[in-house]
Amino acid sequence: MPHIILPDGVPGIRGLFEFRPDTAKPLCELANILLHAPNTLTPGERELIATYVSSRNDCAYCQDSHGAIAAHHLDGNDELVLQVKRNFEQAAISAKLKALLAIAGKVQSGGKRVLPEDISRARQQGATDAEIHDTVLIAAAFCMYNRYVDGLATLLPENPSVYKDRAGMIARNGYMRG
Amino acid sequence: MPHIILPDGVPGIRGLFEFRPDTAKPLCELANILLHAPNTLTPGERELIATYVSSRNDCAYCQDSHGAIAAHHLDGNDELVLQVKRNFEQAAISAKLKALLAIAGKVQSGGKRVLPEDISRARQQGATDAEIHDTVLIAAAFCMYNRYVDGLATLLPENPSVYKDRAGMIARNGYMRG
Repeated sequence: MPHIILPDGVPGIRGLFEFRPDTAKPLCELANILLHAPNTLTPGERELIATYVSSRNDCAYCQDSHGAIAAHHLDGNDELVLQVKRNFEQAAISAKLKALLAIAGKVQSGGKRVLPEDISRARQQGATDAEIHDTVLIAAAFCMYNRYVDGLATLLPENPSVYKDRAGMIARNGYMRG
Repeated sequence: MPHIILPDGVPGIRGLFEFRPDTAKPLCELANILLHAPNTLTPGERELIATYVSSRNDCAYCQDSHGAIAAHHLDGNDELVLQVKRNFEQAAISAKLKALLAIAGKVQSGGKRVLPEDISRARQQGATDAEIHDTVLIAAAFCMYNRYVDGLATLLPENPSVYKDRAGMIARNGYMRG
């Protein structure tokens, strides 16, 4: 049961957005810029970073919803999403994305964990300042979204197929609320 | 030295806002709604929650800047801000704020740490669903801001008096960028 009274049948962060539309607006805008807007990192890469951080924070709703969106961007490759969550260093992804995921994992543990050598590794693989910035902010933002969703004990969807059903719509239209 | 090239002489999150104005907009709007906009929790109470979480995350810039803003709202009572950071259960604050700070501390550790008994304690002290929601979201948001500021190794101000100098302006005008 959620810790506060939320609208029936609206799982995860979506119920919180209905509870407090004022804060939903900047929260959705931030997700849209970080994950959906044009960027030198692909939407699939950015969704993998979000999914990986949510997995490290053990947030079921966020890792399953963003995992489904990541898979949608990656031609339905659910297996790759699982590989990234389990051991991204061995996953079939670029060396640059591995370096960025290593930074994201450090941010999840705490901002000060990110060391100059983590940044050097990313730069050696071609990451720009903007990409390093966005990786840190995506990881930090999911440390917020994950805590928001679980700190209020929101419910999971009754039918997990809803993640896949919504993934295509979000991949196309982004995160802004209509 | 910051991990990416940031504008000279603009410390903490302010340099990051100049680096990426697109994400600065929703980040400032979120802070403004949570900490400055009208609310049944006073601005002083909300800034104490932000300061306490930033202190637990060991983020010097955020705990000092929001600590100064909290003190400004509390008639310059720096000692009370220190008490809250050191041991809020013994601080000269309301029983309701103590219960909300206990929830905020749980959120800082991880969303799932918040238990029904933490919520019951807050309700017994008169906290509403909206106040519990905002406490969780303030705590979650500072887990983001703190990681953003430290994950990119932003600099502290050369002169710490800048915190107090800016506190009055922010207390009056809020967090929206002009």
